[in-house]
Amino acid sequence: MYVIKTIEWKNDTVVMLDQRKLPRQEVYNTYGDYKGVADAIRTMVIRGAPAIGVAAAMGVALGALGIGVNNFEGFMERLERVCETLLTTRPTAVNLAWAVERMRRVCHDHRDMTIQALKERLREEALTIYHEDIEVNRMIGKHGQTLLADGDAVLTHCNAGALATAGFGTALGVLYAAQEAGKRLRIYADETRPFLQGARLTAWELQKHGMDVTVITDNMAGALMAQGKIHQVIVGADRIAANGDVANKIGTYSVAVLAHHHRLPMYVAAPCSTIDFAKGSGAEIPIEERPAGEVTAIEGVPITPALVKVVNPSFDVTPADLVSAIITERGWNSALTTLAGRSATGVFRI
Amino acid sequence: MYVIKTIEWKNDTVVMLDQRKLPRQEVYNTYGDYKGVADAIRTMVIRGAPAIGVAAAMGVALGALGIGVNNFEGFMERLERVCETLLTTRPTAVNLAWAVERMRRVCHDHRDMTIQALKERLREEALTIYHEDIEVNRMIGKHGQTLLADGDAVLTHCNAGALATAGFGTALGVLYAAQEAGKRLRIYADETRPFLQGARLTAWELQKHGMDVTVITDNMAGALMAQGKIHQVIVGADRIAANGDVANKIGTYSVAVLAHHHRLPMYVAAPCSTIDFAKGSGAEIPIEERPAGEVTAIEGVPITPALVKVVNPSFDVTPADLVSAIITERGWNSALTTLAGRSATGVFRI
Repeated sequence: MYVIKTIEWKNDTVVMLDQRKLPRQEVYNTYGDYKGVADAIRTMVIRGAPAIGVAAAMGVALGALGIGVNNFEGFMERLERVCETLLTTRPTAVNLAWAVERMRRVCHDHRDMTIQALKERLREEALTIYHEDIEVNRMIGKHGQTLLADGDAVLTHCNAGALATAGFGTALGVLYAAQEAGKRLRIYADETRPFLQGARLTAWELQKHGMDVTVITDNMAGALMAQGKIHQVIVGADRIAANGDVANKIGTYSVAVLAHHHRLPMYVAAPCSTIDFAKGSGAEIPIEERPAGEVTAIEGVPITPALVKVVNPSFDVTPADLVSAIITERGWNSALTTLAGRSATGVFRI
Repeated sequence: MYVIKTIEWKNDTVVMLDQRKLPRQEVYNTYGDYKGVADAIRTMVIRGAPAIGVAAAMGVALGALGIGVNNFEGFMERLERVCETLLTTRPTAVNLAWAVERMRRVCHDHRDMTIQALKERLREEALTIYHEDIEVNRMIGKHGQTLLADGDAVLTHCNAGALATAGFGTALGVLYAAQEAGKRLRIYADETRPFLQGARLTAWELQKHGMDVTVITDNMAGALMAQGKIHQVIVGADRIAANGDVANKIGTYSVAVLAHHHRLPMYVAAPCSTIDFAKGSGAEIPIEERPAGEVTAIEGVPITPALVKVVNPSFDVTPADLVSAIITERGWNSALTTLAGRSATGVFRI
């Protein structure tokens, strides 16, 4: 299997595949300090909730290495600034806050260590988060692939693949696991305007893995469903509320409504770290508004009249009752799966 | 009111605003023979079902002027070639066939005329079709605007405006008529991938008319509906079957399903010439498949990996039961309008 190196820790630097340049160029950027990592997250060199979590953890570890203070309080004061910078890069993905909090906890759990040892412990923790993410994705794939059958045509939206994680992927990980299990699938990839993660990233990585992928514009999904050409939908998630509402890339909600109308299963694949039990419902999840230029121009070429108004919410919320099952590393919640009648309730249990 | 000159007959040439270059450049192309007009339709210099009809009629008139044969049978043999060339440019819009057939009928109704007089009669008929189209749009606007209220937020898809017709527009004509009636509207324009008619053309002409327009990517419509930001949907049509099924720009069906899910009115505005009584249902309407390059590149910039598979159906079919009302120059069919329960039947009556 082709291995995509989305992000790596290398000689105390963080190396990222620059996803803004895909699929035309495969460029790897090297970041020697946490500010570079924060910029990379903000400008979407790296994106995808799990990948952002890993990047943030590595950013904290990198920031720690750069702190020249040797008492715990002074060290923590500086590290807090590092954490704050990383936390404010993107607001919707909960994995970011989750990873930063986990790094903070390492410090407080080891306040007796020397600062030098603590720095090494933080680096170790970032690498653990990295390896755990790949392992978690493998488990999501293992559980999720049982929902797919040989010959299925699956629609996916945005990119919840190797490029959105430390490796393997969540939604696409399920497809890769199905492929490894000998199931032949046909994949439709929504191009996913405005940032085109589907056209640029999902198509690229599915091709690298030798899968049968067809790119469609976002507005074609309904027509293909009406023609019976799509059998199920699988997407990732940026944050899942305690009631099972799913925040994911803008357009996911439309796809969920279309799947519901055509009585097709709508699966969400995400690690448990994506679940925010502090949010009672999707209404409480902050939705990032990104720059207008992502809508008014494509690859730098303007496509609207100058000065036209646009909106650019990066995510939307799909209510739990439109989700057939949420697939995590612990399995998939069959309680929600009532494919025929879709009378699922919005209670999420793991 | 700003007047957009989509197409004009000028000194025995046809002048068209090159819509491929909008909104960045306002370029007018002059065509001296019917082959140029056919190419212009095929390559989408001009598009929109009513505009294509007018262009085809002018193409036939232009073709007639260029025929150097003076007996009726010889003249008609040549003219038949002109008609065939124009008919094969785009398959879905029925107005094209309707306009060419109307021009043919003029010949057969006046076979006693001199060829010179017949040529003038054909030119006259093309201009009549042109003027009738504007008048018809005015009537569609007059009837349709009664469905809108001051303060409404309306979603439209693709471009069914002045640019899609001889002038004024069908769906956008309804909005212009509402504006003339003193109703302030907020318009959301789907960008309408792959050809971006919404971002490029609808936004441009609504701005020219001083209307409040916001461009969104196609995949945002559902989220905005869920937030209560859209009150109704209005689109045009490329062909309407006898049972009320509507073929229109790809993505119209998805918008209709979303409107249905959110219990919002879904209006289709089109002249009666768009109705094809020979087609019992939408399943019989031919759907044009356009070049892959429209999906894989935007304004010449590639956005997918090389050689990826794509599909590019230019239209989809919205079943009659998802349409709240069809607005024509004769009024709107209230029989279909059961906004609360949406229990409309698929029988179309004018």
